Amino acid sequence: MGIHTQVNGYGSDDVVLLAHGSGGTMSHELVEKRLLAQISNAALDRLDDSAVLNSATRIAFTTDSYVVSPILFPGGDIGRLAVCGTVNDLAMVGAEPVCLSLALIIEEGLPFHTLDVVMQSVHKACVEAKVRVVTGDTKVVNRGKADGLFITTSGIGFVQEGLDISGRRAKTGDKVILSGSIAEHGVAIMSAREGLSFSTTVISDCAPLNGLVCAMLAQSTDAVHTMRDPTRGGLATTLNEIASQSRVGIVIDESAIPVRQEVRAACEMLGLDPLYVANEGKLVAVVAEEQAEDMIEAMRRHPLGNDATIVGEIISEKSGRVMMRTRMGPTRLVQMLAGELLPRIC
Amino acid sequence: MGIHTQVNGYGSDDVVLLAHGSGGTMSHELVEKRLLAQISNAALDRLDDSAVLNSATRIAFTTDSYVVSPILFPGGDIGRLAVCGTVNDLAMVGAEPVCLSLALIIEEGLPFHTLDVVMQSVHKACVEAKVRVVTGDTKVVNRGKADGLFITTSGIGFVQEGLDISGRRAKTGDKVILSGSIAEHGVAIMSAREGLSFSTTVISDCAPLNGLVCAMLAQSTDAVHTMRDPTRGGLATTLNEIASQSRVGIVIDESAIPVRQEVRAACEMLGLDPLYVANEGKLVAVVAEEQAEDMIEAMRRHPLGNDATIVGEIISEKSGRVMMRTRMGPTRLVQMLAGELLPRIC
Repeated sequence: MGIHTQVNGYGSDDVVLLAHGSGGTMSHELVEKRLLAQISNAALDRLDDSAVLNSATRIAFTTDSYVVSPILFPGGDIGRLAVCGTVNDLAMVGAEPVCLSLALIIEEGLPFHTLDVVMQSVHKACVEAKVRVVTGDTKVVNRGKADGLFITTSGIGFVQEGLDISGRRAKTGDKVILSGSIAEHGVAIMSAREGLSFSTTVISDCAPLNGLVCAMLAQSTDAVHTMRDPTRGGLATTLNEIASQSRVGIVIDESAIPVRQEVRAACEMLGLDPLYVANEGKLVAVVAEEQAEDMIEAMRRHPLGNDATIVGEIISEKSGRVMMRTRMGPTRLVQMLAGELLPRIC
Repeated sequence: MGIHTQVNGYGSDDVVLLAHGSGGTMSHELVEKRLLAQISNAALDRLDDSAVLNSATRIAFTTDSYVVSPILFPGGDIGRLAVCGTVNDLAMVGAEPVCLSLALIIEEGLPFHTLDVVMQSVHKACVEAKVRVVTGDTKVVNRGKADGLFITTSGIGFVQEGLDISGRRAKTGDKVILSGSIAEHGVAIMSAREGLSFSTTVISDCAPLNGLVCAMLAQSTDAVHTMRDPTRGGLATTLNEIASQSRVGIVIDESAIPVRQEVRAACEMLGLDPLYVANEGKLVAVVAEEQAEDMIEAMRRHPLGNDATIVGEIISEKSGRVMMRTRMGPTRLVQMLAGELLPRIC
């Protein structure tokens, strides 16, 4: 698990050494040959202590550390995850992502090949999301003091004047829209980790959502009250966060929530409830009732919103709680994830 | 070394568990009770995926990961270091630091007490530097997959219109100013790590430099061509970076570089050259010749610039190289740090 199995067969010239974290010539070589080589751009190449950007308007700012294990998984790797995760956090407040920072904590012994694969992924995801990495940092720690590679990305986005999308704005009567099927990222990681193979490989849904959000805001800026990407803790936890922040109740329909058949099968085998499993390319939007159908149509025209559907609504009762109408009929409480379900899923 | 010695004596209620990284209720408890409790503010408390700020002007953006070992050291800890380091990176391009992000990677088993000490330090350093943490993230990894606590801070600052302070702007004839005595941070860490005690404890110089930079820019915005804080790799590496980026030569005077006596003694005992030892509260400025004396006076009026002095100058020969006039007389080449001197110094 982790990097240790990947070190086999690599000589000392092929792996990261502690000296690559010195700040001296070996650090410079690492930065120039391995990192800038992939993600070079004018702002980053200046190598000053901070990147300087021209700003127009209101700024959104976010950060996330990624410690996913394994580093490479079906449908992505820690690099793609880091870029998409930060882009998505910006998109969830309606911001247009502009630039990212990228900070690496590398365990001595990480094969350069793995680092190269991850950096190529960072580059590819940046192109997809139309963002640039403009500043970065690299630290190396001794063997046994990290787990291959941790990445922390922060992001800056610009927010249109007047836009106020927040976890606090869900209102009674609003519809809860889910952009697509759930639980794919978590199942992909767990399958990779446990060495499971199913008849169909489950692929992480990891993707940058800013294009979909752009399509949604083009449809209507006023209609979208809240957006969240249901990552760690899954859809159940995200809905609980919204219910709590907005002080409203949420009712969802179990039968309306799309779960792919192979994902449902894998969840059963792994003993997981898809509602609590992480997604990395899906969003939940709380949308004004009268505009929900038009919004669904706008979302379905985007590749990442093909399966968008209404899964529930905001109610004035049961403030702070999430209820689910089950397939069997009765309504049950959907609690926030307690304890640990899937460690190191992102 | 590291966290393992600190775990002794703590029960399982007193330490971070893997479940604190789940994204569920335990994560929320950790964030609310341990983290927000220390650094609460309106932007951060919204707990949306991104903080939204009103922006005036040009933005500076920077990031750094901190992996210092030990986490607590004479004169500071990883929390103070993370805030000061990011504030200083912003200050080095002449930006006024405005807000920070704070991302924690915690090893399961970290005592809450250590986390509390670090978060108090984060708060205190933020007050000192007049910045706020507006967004953050927390991940927990299994025991043995990190080393107690890693912190990644990113920062946003605003830059005055027309200001262009960069590693590329050092010009022939410019003076090289050092804000104070060198090598204190590195020696403090090494002493703590090796369990050394000297007659006088060496304290890390870790401090936010934005106040000093503000005083310098109040003196003159045009005079300051380049600023850098000589962290990893020390003064020697920083000067080499400037020489290389600006395509100039730099000559420094060994006798002009302030090194405290206890630091010099410790360096001799540890076999270190102070020129290569990290600083966390000092800056190097490359300043127009005719304004260098006035700048020194302005710096000396600030507590962190009391010992500011001219240590060298920019020359047109020896492009990309740093030369030092030694106490003994002859001039020698000062190379960039090669390999690893002091791992995990920041």
